Amino acid sequence: MAVAWHAPISSNPPLYGVSISPKRFTYQLIADSKEFGINFLPFEAAELVASVGGSKGSEIDKFQRFSIVRNKPVRTAVPILEAAYAAYECRLVDDKVYGDHRWLVGEIVAVHWLKEVFTPDEVIDWTKVSPILYIGKDLYITISKDTIKSLDRKVYGTGN
Amino acid sequence: MAVAWHAPISSNPPLYGVSISPKRFTYQLIADSKEFGINFLPFEAAELVASVGGSKGSEIDKFQRFSIVRNKPVRTAVPILEAAYAAYECRLVDDKVYGDHRWLVGEIVAVHWLKEVFTPDEVIDWTKVSPILYIGKDLYITISKDTIKSLDRKVYGTGN
Repeated sequence: MAVAWHAPISSNPPLYGVSISPKRFTYQLIADSKEFGINFLPFEAAELVASVGGSKGSEIDKFQRFSIVRNKPVRTAVPILEAAYAAYECRLVDDKVYGDHRWLVGEIVAVHWLKEVFTPDEVIDWTKVSPILYIGKDLYITISKDTIKSLDRKVYGTGN
Repeated sequence: MAVAWHAPISSNPPLYGVSISPKRFTYQLIADSKEFGINFLPFEAAELVASVGGSKGSEIDKFQRFSIVRNKPVRTAVPILEAAYAAYECRLVDDKVYGDHRWLVGEIVAVHWLKEVFTPDEVIDWTKVSPILYIGKDLYITISKDTIKSLDRKVYGTGN
């Protein structure tokens, strides 16, 4: 499924949270398997995200319908997409109701990444890949690479 | 404080989550007051974010040091920044340990927004405001307004 509400929530251990409606087919898959994958897709794959977001896994096999190529997971059986520039394999460690959604927290047990878009110190080089930013109402946008700026917080924090 | 890990997690009731290290001064303020504000700042305010992120509220009065102008909150006593294009007043409804951080969940009890950057149906017009996107390592970036695309999920979801 396509998810808009998600965030890293701990460094050590590495935990990632995702907010899903329990009405979703995906919720049942995760509740049963106790694991999930998080795939970060480039802006070029926005149509795939709209396709996956607009269809139901209870009705069709999305992998087949949308010709989604999968890479092999290494520590779980979750879907890792060939099109992703980064992906996490997560083991479910918490599942909590908050309002009309559930907050699913997974421990990241394996990471997949496209080496060409990462720097030598293992952070994403955003001049080399454009993320999908979902801004609601079926609208998608991406970053402007030439706006990157570096602001040393230690310098700015002094207020001088 | 400046926060990188946060997400909406429920529509009804409207809940917002933010991940904070319990070592932060801000954590104690929230634990004591049982409320917090979420301020969304434009890219032009990235230097302010670096300033606030690089200093400690236990040592200085950040509002004074960085000349931060506040608007009046309406249902809480949380800080609402004049520079924000949108802001939430939240009442703490949960505080849970996940790894080395705490997950603070607030019910949004009031919303502030800059009318000029919203559409008549009350969503942000991202051609009129540039959000701050923090990409780690003291680097900031924003969106590219001319990349917005609309993809009707109902159409894409059919796979035809």
